[in-house]
Amino acid sequence: MTAQPLLEQLIDALRCLPGVGPKSAQRMALHLLERNREGGVRLSEVMAQAMQEIGRCVECRDLTEFERCGICSNQSRDRRQLCIVESPVDVLALEQATTFRGVYFVLLGRLSPLDGIGPAELGLDQLATRFEESPPEEIIVATNPTVEGEATAYYLQRMAAKHDIPVSMIAHGVPLGGELEYTDQTTLAHAFGTRQRVAPEPVKD
Amino acid sequence: MTAQPLLEQLIDALRCLPGVGPKSAQRMALHLLERNREGGVRLSEVMAQAMQEIGRCVECRDLTEFERCGICSNQSRDRRQLCIVESPVDVLALEQATTFRGVYFVLLGRLSPLDGIGPAELGLDQLATRFEESPPEEIIVATNPTVEGEATAYYLQRMAAKHDIPVSMIAHGVPLGGELEYTDQTTLAHAFGTRQRVAPEPVKD
Repeated sequence: MTAQPLLEQLIDALRCLPGVGPKSAQRMALHLLERNREGGVRLSEVMAQAMQEIGRCVECRDLTEFERCGICSNQSRDRRQLCIVESPVDVLALEQATTFRGVYFVLLGRLSPLDGIGPAELGLDQLATRFEESPPEEIIVATNPTVEGEATAYYLQRMAAKHDIPVSMIAHGVPLGGELEYTDQTTLAHAFGTRQRVAPEPVKD
Repeated sequence: MTAQPLLEQLIDALRCLPGVGPKSAQRMALHLLERNREGGVRLSEVMAQAMQEIGRCVECRDLTEFERCGICSNQSRDRRQLCIVESPVDVLALEQATTFRGVYFVLLGRLSPLDGIGPAELGLDQLATRFEESPPEEIIVATNPTVEGEATAYYLQRMAAKHDIPVSMIAHGVPLGGELEYTDQTTLAHAFGTRQRVAPEPVKD
């Protein structure tokens, strides 16, 4: 053999995609070559451009090819509400599911001292400056409900408390459409423990 | 919104891959951007080159960036044994699983008159010329055991018979490691019907 055939190179290269093993990579390569060369050409172009140009938003650290992401540069978004998430996927998920019109801050991780990830790595100094200079009226913490996510949430709550900014956290409990029977014990215990009183009359707080 | 953000373009473009829905495309895009830009750059380059350069082998119709594929241009492959398959994936599967040292012919489909796929579309005229000019000593038909695959196999058997070339077909039956209980009825009936006598002594034929 001289060089590896291009088809095999393509199959190998496709395996850098998450969740793609040898069989799927093979199927993808042949699908593109046999049925969708145009799609393949377009994908290769967009991918090359994205890998080259996409960086971080200077304000919220989300992924964008511009200095500021689409949300931070959108004047109609309400800068008084700041939602803090771990990763760019969370921004996409919240944008798709909710009608939130505020802005985000993307930590790009969670506090994990054992892995050497401290406040600086999560851009919390940048966030602290923001709390000083233009404090939001509400902070919504939407880290993942894992041990490290909860620790990060706790740290954020203390940061916000120093600046007297009200903090809320997204609700954790039994997912809608789920069944108690199939909900894991930790979630169920948490949902039971944080049960909320339902009032027959609308309550004022 | 002016143009679509590059990240969304990438997510959209990734969906041209088979089996990739919106969620997987999102996960792939973010994985490449956050953890493996090098892999993404390499993938985009190889993909662009593959879409541009990969064509058909003039001899066996398999996918290759050269005039002749690696197998057809390999002098150590035995040209007296010709294995006929439906698709380039089948060549890859057989190369990985068997020690076959002959050559292949790739139909790129199967006879399907209703879809307008006749002998000409499968390159059977090219195959007939080959049977005339340099007939192989054995033809191994390895089409898929579907109705159309079987019809194609039958057509190939008749073509070979005209030139007095012996034909064999790969065995169909209960897969190794499978259990009779979980084998579908058609396969089981076929396996039962094509049972083979086992001889206590080696048999000469």
